[in-house]
Amino acid sequence: MAKLKNVLWIMADQLRYDYLSCYGHKTLHTPNIDRLAAMGVKFNRTYVQSPICGPSRMSFYTGRYVRSHGSTWNGFPLRVGEPTLGDHLRELGVRCSLVGKTHMVPDAEGMKRLGIEPESVIGNFVRECGFEPYERDDGLHPTALSHHSNLAYNEYLRAHGMGGENPWEDWANSAEGPDGEILSGWYMQNAHLPARVPAEHSETTYMMNRGIDFMEEAEGPWLCHLSFIKPHWPYMAPAPYNDMYSAKDLPPVVRTDEELRTDHPFLKSWQETRVSECFSRDDVRDRVAPVYMGLIKQLDDEMGRLLDYLEKSGRLEDTMIVFTSDHGDNMGDHWLGEKDLFYDCSARIPLIIYDPRPEADSTRGTSTDLLAEGIDLAATFVECFGGNAKPHILEGRSLMPIIEDRVGSWRKYAISEYDYSTRSPRRALDVDEADARLIMVFDGRWKYIHCEGFRPMLFDLETDPGEVVDLGAVAEHEQTRERLRQEMDRWSRTHHNRITISKARIEKLTDIGEPPGILIGYWDAPKAENSDTSG
Amino acid sequence: MAKLKNVLWIMADQLRYDYLSCYGHKTLHTPNIDRLAAMGVKFNRTYVQSPICGPSRMSFYTGRYVRSHGSTWNGFPLRVGEPTLGDHLRELGVRCSLVGKTHMVPDAEGMKRLGIEPESVIGNFVRECGFEPYERDDGLHPTALSHHSNLAYNEYLRAHGMGGENPWEDWANSAEGPDGEILSGWYMQNAHLPARVPAEHSETTYMMNRGIDFMEEAEGPWLCHLSFIKPHWPYMAPAPYNDMYSAKDLPPVVRTDEELRTDHPFLKSWQETRVSECFSRDDVRDRVAPVYMGLIKQLDDEMGRLLDYLEKSGRLEDTMIVFTSDHGDNMGDHWLGEKDLFYDCSARIPLIIYDPRPEADSTRGTSTDLLAEGIDLAATFVECFGGNAKPHILEGRSLMPIIEDRVGSWRKYAISEYDYSTRSPRRALDVDEADARLIMVFDGRWKYIHCEGFRPMLFDLETDPGEVVDLGAVAEHEQTRERLRQEMDRWSRTHHNRITISKARIEKLTDIGEPPGILIGYWDAPKAENSDTSG
Repeated sequence: MAKLKNVLWIMADQLRYDYLSCYGHKTLHTPNIDRLAAMGVKFNRTYVQSPICGPSRMSFYTGRYVRSHGSTWNGFPLRVGEPTLGDHLRELGVRCSLVGKTHMVPDAEGMKRLGIEPESVIGNFVRECGFEPYERDDGLHPTALSHHSNLAYNEYLRAHGMGGENPWEDWANSAEGPDGEILSGWYMQNAHLPARVPAEHSETTYMMNRGIDFMEEAEGPWLCHLSFIKPHWPYMAPAPYNDMYSAKDLPPVVRTDEELRTDHPFLKSWQETRVSECFSRDDVRDRVAPVYMGLIKQLDDEMGRLLDYLEKSGRLEDTMIVFTSDHGDNMGDHWLGEKDLFYDCSARIPLIIYDPRPEADSTRGTSTDLLAEGIDLAATFVECFGGNAKPHILEGRSLMPIIEDRVGSWRKYAISEYDYSTRSPRRALDVDEADARLIMVFDGRWKYIHCEGFRPMLFDLETDPGEVVDLGAVAEHEQTRERLRQEMDRWSRTHHNRITISKARIEKLTDIGEPPGILIGYWDAPKAENSDTSG
Repeated sequence: MAKLKNVLWIMADQLRYDYLSCYGHKTLHTPNIDRLAAMGVKFNRTYVQSPICGPSRMSFYTGRYVRSHGSTWNGFPLRVGEPTLGDHLRELGVRCSLVGKTHMVPDAEGMKRLGIEPESVIGNFVRECGFEPYERDDGLHPTALSHHSNLAYNEYLRAHGMGGENPWEDWANSAEGPDGEILSGWYMQNAHLPARVPAEHSETTYMMNRGIDFMEEAEGPWLCHLSFIKPHWPYMAPAPYNDMYSAKDLPPVVRTDEELRTDHPFLKSWQETRVSECFSRDDVRDRVAPVYMGLIKQLDDEMGRLLDYLEKSGRLEDTMIVFTSDHGDNMGDHWLGEKDLFYDCSARIPLIIYDPRPEADSTRGTSTDLLAEGIDLAATFVECFGGNAKPHILEGRSLMPIIEDRVGSWRKYAISEYDYSTRSPRRALDVDEADARLIMVFDGRWKYIHCEGFRPMLFDLETDPGEVVDLGAVAEHEQTRERLRQEMDRWSRTHHNRITISKARIEKLTDIGEPPGILIGYWDAPKAENSDTSG
């Protein structure tokens, strides 16, 4: 396989798969992202490994399931020693750089135990989840936390005349009232107002500039993870994106009264959280969702600027470009707000891969319904830089066979996990924190959701693409549930930690039997012809 | 709880639970180990987490299941960053020292990735599985491997007039023929002959001396893991232990013709390995098992010397003493040799704990049928030194409540795993290396054995204590199999890697909801009375 020189891996945060025109949105036109899709392969059915920032990203960055890397919720540190994409790429001589968000929280206790100095070169990689941070910015810097104090973006805003203790909050994520008072973007009643920051200095534009800065400076080969915070909340856009769309541009909300009458204790409890109740209000959705669209539109405009830059700089000829997100946004569907749970609006993401090599010509502009997982990207990147995808460590599958139109058998299920141990429904349901676990198994038609301690949920996306009819207790679907339950348990039982020994090494050890000189179960000296060492 | 000063943790290698007189052996009298049992608690039903040295020991030394630490077979490196008993004890100010065997293979690749110098203090802990090696000796040093070249025991033998390239092999594990020729202990036809080494310089005696040396020198508090290689093969004992027993002293072999007619492909394949066929011969068992008994008898004699030393030195008053082994030896039972698989002769071990504190007086000299697992020891040691047993990391349960006669509810199942990926039956059965997995779930009566890709096995130890009737395909036991299958899968699905966050921290995070300043799903400023942050 011809080698690519670089990979530019773009990630939006909280971007639903269906809020792009190439994925079917009717009123939100995203011609630049659509242009990328026309240049590459659009993956129609891609699922994240957890529908929440931290765990999803740790899966992207390690190429491993959430149960494997163990960072099951935002802020749960990634254990020291967990191999990262950056580790694998550095072995191949490739820089793995970060511009933007990762949501990584390092395992300070583990680093101390192993004597890894946080400020050392390796310590920095460990703290940054394997990335070399060109610019790290997780994009959430409330004044009440200290995150903002050393934020480069705050320095930037100040240099452009937007000052105060925390310009991120006061300019980029606040509006102004008629009397000059600051109206916080945290309160969704203000969502339709323009952010105080002009678009040219907003977070999306700033981070795109930084991405281009990196590419201007960097020698290849590199992977650049250009990772935007928006359209993640606070839902507040700079002009003109703040009022580019209105409630009439929204797709119909997907929810039914039957859903509210669910007998599933877990789902009921989730519907009853404050956030879900808030997003179930029409006035909230009608105000927030158009701004969410505006933020996506802004990102698309910036993507246009990026594609122009890539074309002009020659990078379109030697750089793979990947566009994706870390999870979606329920945005009132199913009587839910935020992400979480496994409805398509939350667990399904857009994924577009442009590969400039001639080997990818036959799939250019096509799309595929094959099931992809977020963890497939790490394996893809390792392979596209000529490495071994290390299946004993990387649990995803390289997408290169799809991109090169040479795919044979493919995975039958996409899997996602969710740990609700820190969420209020756990207490309401009186579940032990260790048992607050959900697992989704989706086979392309049937979505099975295991809720530890409760009955499963089941949706048939063929007859019910909106996922509003829970078949989890319907007798006629028992066989389907049993089949998917078996797949889930089979997957749970597999090795998730046997990462220090390759498949090739195991085959070699099987050939050898026992090390030289270790003679087990011999009555007398083995004759040359029967010196096998089986058992 | 009053603190103990030290822990002396003795481990024999490959010692079956039933080859001690306190565990019911009729002809092998082990008065010294029995004396320890009379001073403490004898655990009647203790199972290792894998019936093979390396994985079993990595579970003992990490306090975690094999699927959690990932070192699933001998020589598969323990991943860097896996927390060890030694790490937990050092936090408590306790030295964790090793005298003898661990079977640890370090994760050199992971250490390099994290910049951990092998020769540094921390690097040494990582390489030695958390132990401070007073003396490391894995006890298997064939001349064909280079292990022997720097072996302290070889230096010792040379200093006592036993020279040559590799005295371990040529003196401690070889006999002499009538014409002075060296007869190798690897060949079991020689097992009955006396080793060339005199008992006083044999491995068992040498390592006991080294353990006493350590205790003479060490300041407490310490844990000393005194870890003997024998009665592990090569089955060769010094005089007089080599011919202290004969075939007439052996318990009847446990095997039936029905077992040979098994329709279970896995079991059939295992019976057909060379080692199993060899140990199925009466002449082999009749020659080897008496020597195995002799090696145990020697260990018991050394235990007598140890107990005398401990009494004289005052250690009986301030030191917990634990006696156990890492797995058993099939010794021809079930037409099998070696360890492996989950028959009691292989997966069940002796476990005796002497605790000198008055709190343990009420259980002194008693035994318990409660199910114990090898991983319980790490949690026990952490607790007995006053630490928190860290249930998010340590998967075993402290045995202190049993020792102090205050146990409430207890575990319902013991679990053990086995990875046969490098074994010849895997090829014979055409199983992918990743699927070569077995799991045992034993509830105190029913032993359920999951064989990935094959039907399960099931034994009823109440009606069939010899485990010769496989009920894995008998229709009337379907409910029992289903119940244990469900327990296995439930256990497989639990967190095994969420080790960076404590239960207390999760409860605290649940209380908090979201970090300060992060306001999700608010239409307007929350009023003081409804400022909960659920969801």
